[in-house]
Amino acid sequence: MEKKKIWTGRINKQTNALAEEFIKSIKIDKELYVQDLIGNAAYAVGLESIGILSRDELKLILIGLKEIKKAIEENKVDFNQYEDIHSLVEFELEKNIGTPASKIHTGRSRNDQIVLDELLYIKSAIAKIVKLILDLEDLLIEKASKNLTLILPAYTHMQKAQPVLVSHYLLAYFEKFSRCLRMLFFNFQSSDFLPLGAGACVGSGYPINRQLLASILKFEKLGSNSMDIVSSRDCISDYLYTCTMIMQNLSRFAEDFIIFNSQEFSYINIDDSFCTGSSIMPQKKNPDILELIRGKSAAVLGHLMQIMALLKGLPLTYNSDLQEDKKILFNAHNETTNSISIFIELLKNTEFDKNKMLENCKGGFIEATDAADYLVKKGLAFRQAHSIVGSMVNYCIKKGIHFYDLDLNTLKKFSEFFDNDFFENIKIENCINSKLTDCSTSTQSVRNNIEKAKEEILSFKKEYNSLINKIPDFDEIIKTHL
Amino acid sequence: MEKKKIWTGRINKQTNALAEEFIKSIKIDKELYVQDLIGNAAYAVGLESIGILSRDELKLILIGLKEIKKAIEENKVDFNQYEDIHSLVEFELEKNIGTPASKIHTGRSRNDQIVLDELLYIKSAIAKIVKLILDLEDLLIEKASKNLTLILPAYTHMQKAQPVLVSHYLLAYFEKFSRCLRMLFFNFQSSDFLPLGAGACVGSGYPINRQLLASILKFEKLGSNSMDIVSSRDCISDYLYTCTMIMQNLSRFAEDFIIFNSQEFSYINIDDSFCTGSSIMPQKKNPDILELIRGKSAAVLGHLMQIMALLKGLPLTYNSDLQEDKKILFNAHNETTNSISIFIELLKNTEFDKNKMLENCKGGFIEATDAADYLVKKGLAFRQAHSIVGSMVNYCIKKGIHFYDLDLNTLKKFSEFFDNDFFENIKIENCINSKLTDCSTSTQSVRNNIEKAKEEILSFKKEYNSLINKIPDFDEIIKTHL
Amino acid sequence: MEKKKIWTGRINKQTNALAEEFIKSIKIDKELYVQDLIGNAAYAVGLESIGILSRDELKLILIGLKEIKKAIEENKVDFNQYEDIHSLVEFELEKNIGTPASKIHTGRSRNDQIVLDELLYIKSAIAKIVKLILDLEDLLIEKASKNLTLILPAYTHMQKAQPVLVSHYLLAYFEKFSRCLRMLFFNFQSSDFLPLGAGACVGSGYPINRQLLASILKFEKLGSNSMDIVSSRDCISDYLYTCTMIMQNLSRFAEDFIIFNSQEFSYINIDDSFCTGSSIMPQKKNPDILELIRGKSAAVLGHLMQIMALLKGLPLTYNSDLQEDKKILFNAHNETTNSISIFIELLKNTEFDKNKMLENCKGGFIEATDAADYLVKKGLAFRQAHSIVGSMVNYCIKKGIHFYDLDLNTLKKFSEFFDNDFFENIKIENCINSKLTDCSTSTQSVRNNIEKAKEEILSFKKEYNSLINKIPDFDEIIKTHL
Amino acid sequence: MEKKKIWTGRINKQTNALAEEFIKSIKIDKELYVQDLIGNAAYAVGLESIGILSRDELKLILIGLKEIKKAIEENKVDFNQYEDIHSLVEFELEKNIGTPASKIHTGRSRNDQIVLDELLYIKSAIAKIVKLILDLEDLLIEKASKNLTLILPAYTHMQKAQPVLVSHYLLAYFEKFSRCLRMLFFNFQSSDFLPLGAGACVGSGYPINRQLLASILKFEKLGSNSMDIVSSRDCISDYLYTCTMIMQNLSRFAEDFIIFNSQEFSYINIDDSFCTGSSIMPQKKNPDILELIRGKSAAVLGHLMQIMALLKGLPLTYNSDLQEDKKILFNAHNETTNSISIFIELLKNTEFDKNKMLENCKGGFIEATDAADYLVKKGLAFRQAHSIVGSMVNYCIKKGIHFYDLDLNTLKKFSEFFDNDFFENIKIENCINSKLTDCSTSTQSVRNNIEKAKEEILSFKKEYNSLINKIPDFDEIIKTHL
Repeated sequence: MEKKKIWTGRINKQTNALAEEFIKSIKIDKELYVQDLIGNAAYAVGLESIGILSRDELKLILIGLKEIKKAIEENKVDFNQYEDIHSLVEFELEKNIGTPASKIHTGRSRNDQIVLDELLYIKSAIAKIVKLILDLEDLLIEKASKNLTLILPAYTHMQKAQPVLVSHYLLAYFEKFSRCLRMLFFNFQSSDFLPLGAGACVGSGYPINRQLLASILKFEKLGSNSMDIVSSRDCISDYLYTCTMIMQNLSRFAEDFIIFNSQEFSYINIDDSFCTGSSIMPQKKNPDILELIRGKSAAVLGHLMQIMALLKGLPLTYNSDLQEDKKILFNAHNETTNSISIFIELLKNTEFDKNKMLENCKGGFIEATDAADYLVKKGLAFRQAHSIVGSMVNYCIKKGIHFYDLDLNTLKKFSEFFDNDFFENIKIENCINSKLTDCSTSTQSVRNNIEKAKEEILSFKKEYNSLINKIPDFDEIIKTHL
Repeated sequence: MEKKKIWTGRINKQTNALAEEFIKSIKIDKELYVQDLIGNAAYAVGLESIGILSRDELKLILIGLKEIKKAIEENKVDFNQYEDIHSLVEFELEKNIGTPASKIHTGRSRNDQIVLDELLYIKSAIAKIVKLILDLEDLLIEKASKNLTLILPAYTHMQKAQPVLVSHYLLAYFEKFSRCLRMLFFNFQSSDFLPLGAGACVGSGYPINRQLLASILKFEKLGSNSMDIVSSRDCISDYLYTCTMIMQNLSRFAEDFIIFNSQEFSYINIDDSFCTGSSIMPQKKNPDILELIRGKSAAVLGHLMQIMALLKGLPLTYNSDLQEDKKILFNAHNETTNSISIFIELLKNTEFDKNKMLENCKGGFIEATDAADYLVKKGLAFRQAHSIVGSMVNYCIKKGIHFYDLDLNTLKKFSEFFDNDFFENIKIENCINSKLTDCSTSTQSVRNNIEKAKEEILSFKKEYNSLINKIPDFDEIIKTHL
Repeated sequence: MEKKKIWTGRINKQTNALAEEFIKSIKIDKELYVQDLIGNAAYAVGLESIGILSRDELKLILIGLKEIKKAIEENKVDFNQYEDIHSLVEFELEKNIGTPASKIHTGRSRNDQIVLDELLYIKSAIAKIVKLILDLEDLLIEKASKNLTLILPAYTHMQKAQPVLVSHYLLAYFEKFSRCLRMLFFNFQSSDFLPLGAGACVGSGYPINRQLLASILKFEKLGSNSMDIVSSRDCISDYLYTCTMIMQNLSRFAEDFIIFNSQEFSYINIDDSFCTGSSIMPQKKNPDILELIRGKSAAVLGHLMQIMALLKGLPLTYNSDLQEDKKILFNAHNETTNSISIFIELLKNTEFDKNKMLENCKGGFIEATDAADYLVKKGLAFRQAHSIVGSMVNYCIKKGIHFYDLDLNTLKKFSEFFDNDFFENIKIENCINSKLTDCSTSTQSVRNNIEKAKEEILSFKKEYNSLINKIPDFDEIIKTHL
Repeated sequence: MEKKKIWTGRINKQTNALAEEFIKSIKIDKELYVQDLIGNAAYAVGLESIGILSRDELKLILIGLKEIKKAIEENKVDFNQYEDIHSLVEFELEKNIGTPASKIHTGRSRNDQIVLDELLYIKSAIAKIVKLILDLEDLLIEKASKNLTLILPAYTHMQKAQPVLVSHYLLAYFEKFSRCLRMLFFNFQSSDFLPLGAGACVGSGYPINRQLLASILKFEKLGSNSMDIVSSRDCISDYLYTCTMIMQNLSRFAEDFIIFNSQEFSYINIDDSFCTGSSIMPQKKNPDILELIRGKSAAVLGHLMQIMALLKGLPLTYNSDLQEDKKILFNAHNETTNSISIFIELLKNTEFDKNKMLENCKGGFIEATDAADYLVKKGLAFRQAHSIVGSMVNYCIKKGIHFYDLDLNTLKKFSEFFDNDFFENIKIENCINSKLTDCSTSTQSVRNNIEKAKEEILSFKKEYNSLINKIPDFDEIIKTHL
């Protein structure tokens, strides 16, 4: 069967079959069908408001669009016969309601239409991902509260550094994801403008009622320059950048947990229902999910590379290279949301092993910084204190002993400043609670920061609710305007 | 001569010479010397405020830091003997003032110190680049105003699409760069927090006066979580992303101009002082600068990939991989600022060739969309009008003529709706001015948008001024606290 | 229904449903079903040869595998109930033939099995892409021969440089793609080793007959180190690099053609059946295919980034991150093969416009290098000749004339060396044919290079045939061993 | 002072100072001075052979070039006054010897000249890096031989999988680096062609003696197509790809060692002279070098992206974007060679801790696969055996015991096939040596593979020697032709 196209006239021949298959984007952009239908509904209302469509034609169109949605959702539309989602809607509409369908493209181009669909998609995508991160942050706070005083060795260079609270560790990720949230809110704002009215690239010759369209489609602003509107994909690359950052953070969280899950560390127990076995080694309990997330972080990073390499050096205004943007966008969005979702479930089903962590604090001279601080408080300059404790560590390693095993006499040989209160000072709990800055791991500081996090998340949720109200709904538009 | 290090004590041997060369970052991070000195000055003030330093020691230190700055700027410091900029400052200070120098690292780690230096660098970098983009935007508005009614063919798919005003074209880039500005302001805000107090990773055991430090160093907020502070480089990748977007836009502007500068287009004349010749072909006048900018956009994109691939899957907290971040940051920043600077000069020295552009509007049936719109206004549905005009284009191409050459009779054969006013309607100027949306290329719309752009740039400049006030100055800190 | 897994036993719980969905790769790796079946058939033969399977069991298994293939190809297998293609084959086999199926994994792991499937895929993929490039090269030679003496301006910096033969231009791409071919042959060789016998990571405890397996599976070598075999994906990234290079070359070819197809250049006519129109601008004839190829080159580049970022810093041996490799591989392979296929068709349907190209040689002082060479041949040093001709160009531009319009007297003012033979020397055809190096554009040189290209392609085809013989065929294996 | 240029004449104005600074590449390409001098010397010989230079002029030039080399190496040349290395050589030569210098550019362009310099650089670079990898491989073989029977747990998913020999582990990297070597040899071959004779893009009008030049410059082949020669940078991206692969392998080696170096694993001891301490935590002994290598692997990957994004969609032939290639090439080469060099030293200074590794084999049921294999050998199908052993692992974990602690009665409850020889079978050494494939970790197999590796390295060294002979030497050229 001959595929239908909306641009015959100038082109004298039937498109070559291979070419047609290569050019068409319907397999990808069918994911935008709701957005395209919303856009068409709003645009029809707009056309009626300026007299291009009669009230009756508008009604026919709105009903027609509703039917198309239903047909698509019931799998009754043969996508494959169309070039793209715009053609599909226009031709399906024509099949349903005849002539009025051919007016719906008046004053509009696929160049601004696709931008509309993409902006609507991105706004929804951002809302969805914001919700997921809020869920993750709620869980982080809950886990931090529950494990407030559990102690873990903190690492630098994969070497035990100083003891830290598990709650403090979890809040570090709260901070990281909060930055992603702020970036997402910023991205939403940048994507919140009406592209319609730009036409193919120089604007429309019809008095398109842009304010009306923006209000139906719930856009805050009007795009200002037609050439910019049809040539840019900044909203996509901005969003992909944020996805990449989210995946970066998840990949680091995953890396920590993969290490913590090794038998050598054994800091966490992931529930069996979130692990897999081996087809050959019967004893294995593998953290596949975490590894897959780490792997997917590379995939999303590559998607960012794709969109940016694609745009580099492209002349104004629209070029078909841009058609490749959707696959990139959908893939990156899906990988990211799937990864957050599953990570939340895994985190819910993971417990920290208090004893193993505490036990592991014992080797490695993790109190050395506190030992140096002890000397400074007694009156030494920090650089000397640091050097003395370094020598003590060496001494102990050679003897196979630990700070606790030293007696006061021996200590005095390292520095006159040592006294009996030293041993109290370097107890693990005291190492934690002697930290004095409000960003530190002391129980008091973490308790405060949990409260602050709760306040912050409240304000994030408020902002999320306002996003939700800026996303148009197909049924609502139809209901209002029919 | 033996290189000095601030971490002897535990390590029993002299570092291997090759290893030392490999590890040391001084060749790169010397670029941070002002930031490191500022950080040290503020930190010393802070230490005095909590009694770690006496007032006299503070004075010695501040004077010592001032001398180090002078010595560096007079090329009197042998950078190569130090591992990094922090060691350099500490040891040079010790040379100058002796013991008090060894107290300056109290309660601080190189892990939070380097973050401080980098945040100070980024805040300055952003201010610098904002200023450059403001200059570019001023120039765009000026050029747009001066060339308000000049006409250029707009292109889609590198095919002439519809006529457009040069001013409208220039404002498209105004929009693109305005988005970059907003992103830069957002980046600045994200980078505006005090990292000190985080220590190596768990916070500091000293009652560091963070509010005081923030106020001296002009940070708006305090970093909240020590583990997050020392493990993150989000500010760097955020800033690099924005640099990449700026370069993307420049690369597209450059591409347009390279094409416009070809003999086949000849839309612009770049002043000879901004072109180069060929070593072999005497007739050449090459747009090297534009090509280099386009090339550098690939370089900056690669730098973004570097920082992001570097961070992927890194466990908390600090790992030395992060040491590689500075080379990436400095390179990307320098390429970007140099590219904007030179592009501004080139744009100043480039003129549009009114006649060539107008002449080129004549082939290519650039009025076809307006011809279709004409029929719609007369009562046809758009899809029919589109098809009719397509056939007319075909007809004319075969005859080697143009719309103007058709008489009314012939027109009527295509559609009854044609009338004598058709010819007036498809005059290039009318094609431009018949556009009705406020994002369109009509002279009126562009005039309005120039005014809006002027208002917007005013508010950008206000925001820029507030940035400037958030960047600390070494001399001022010294003067205030000495 | 409960999904079947091959690693129960150790894991105490049913996998969480979300986790299962996240982990399973069947949607992607089902593309490997032929490879997996081939691998199983060969492995079963191997197991029989060492007594693990009886002759009857082998027969059952081979028949069972054949039935699975049939069932898959008739869409009768519910992929979704399995975790991956290996589990699918094992469980479907069990359904068909019972117990013997549970022996087929003896001495094998999914870790070496997936590498086998991937190597078989890559070998086929390379053969397929080699064939396509050979077709493209055949076409290039044919087009070069047919258009041997057609003249085109060559460009540097998008500025007309010197005249060149279209045939020479086409052969430049022949060279580029020949490099890709050589790289593909090299990739094939690197992928031509048997991974079986590696087991999960340390080798197999069964006396797997590797020579026999290699001969059935047509591998030239045996993989040497089990830990390397299961941890590496070098063959994939090597192949993706070559795909990226192919796409790079196509993107440059596409860019040339997009420019040549602009009305301003008009050097080529792409048949209407390979162009598209605009939904709003009736006159447009857009080179979508070329733009899409250019866009896809960015996509494939991003895929290379994905696989390499994925592997960075991964500890030995197998990690599930590697599971993400297949999506990347299949996508990159498909985009690349589709792009070459369609480009071949487009090139077949594209004609060069002799007159337009020749006409365009006339402006731009394209003979300037030859003018300088003229003076050198008369005795001037090149640097002086270059400078003199530069001044002549300036003089002519100011006068609005050309070299042809100068009389001998005027010429003599520039240099005494000018004589009447100058005008003959700078005829376009003479500019072409006065080139003397064997890599140059002179008709003689190009004619020779066409002959050389023909010889080269013959030897490429021979190498291609030997590849084809190294790709195992399922039916053949079954037939031989049943 | 006015900077000198070799392309005045056509360009009417002095280049703008900022533009000049932006355009000039001397700061980067000065690294090519030897290559440029070699190229000039050979080219002069070539020009003499075709009568463009007299014998006396040639002598003057060769002596002049020798003096320039000396001056550069004695730091007596002010690089900054020149645009690029080609201009520097030409003008310095003119200063030294006057007029004959101005003949040296006859029939040559900077477009082919820079390709020559780059190919000479790459050939040297490859030889250098091949040598380093050979050193690394020698060391791997030496270490493997010395530690032949040391046992280490092999990991999959960061979970203990099966026991393996350290020697086998090291040989896995031997395989990985051997692939890099083969790729480097392939790259060398691809880079081994003479570009001279291509001129600016269409070939040269002089009878350049290409065979002679190739023989002096030690190129095996002649570049075939002038347009391809000046437009391609495939040799650079090929080489960068291989550098990225080398860094990938190093990053994985580094990752393994960072983990092995953690206190929790403690498998290796890196000599203190290759570790660093902390500025705040006195007990730290950080594997900085390994982390830096891992970080640099991201940097080199980004460089690969730079060159490839740069080339994407670039029209033929030469564009100045290509000028940016050198910075990318030099950076990637230097990071890679420095990383290999230091890694070799670190590896030399690292010892494996036999006891720690063996002790760690004891937990984690690392013998489970062998336990299953035991049952298969006794007659069970593998899938059942796998399941039974999985249950045994569960049972033991619950009881807090190990396989060794089970008595025969208990074993029999799991399977009738168990017998007393089971305990012998699952001894760690037997797990190792019961492996039967020639790619496995059995002592015999590894011993064989060490021998094979030695043979392979011999043949690599032979190939290396033949590379060395294909790299021209400046002094030798001068001596031969003076």
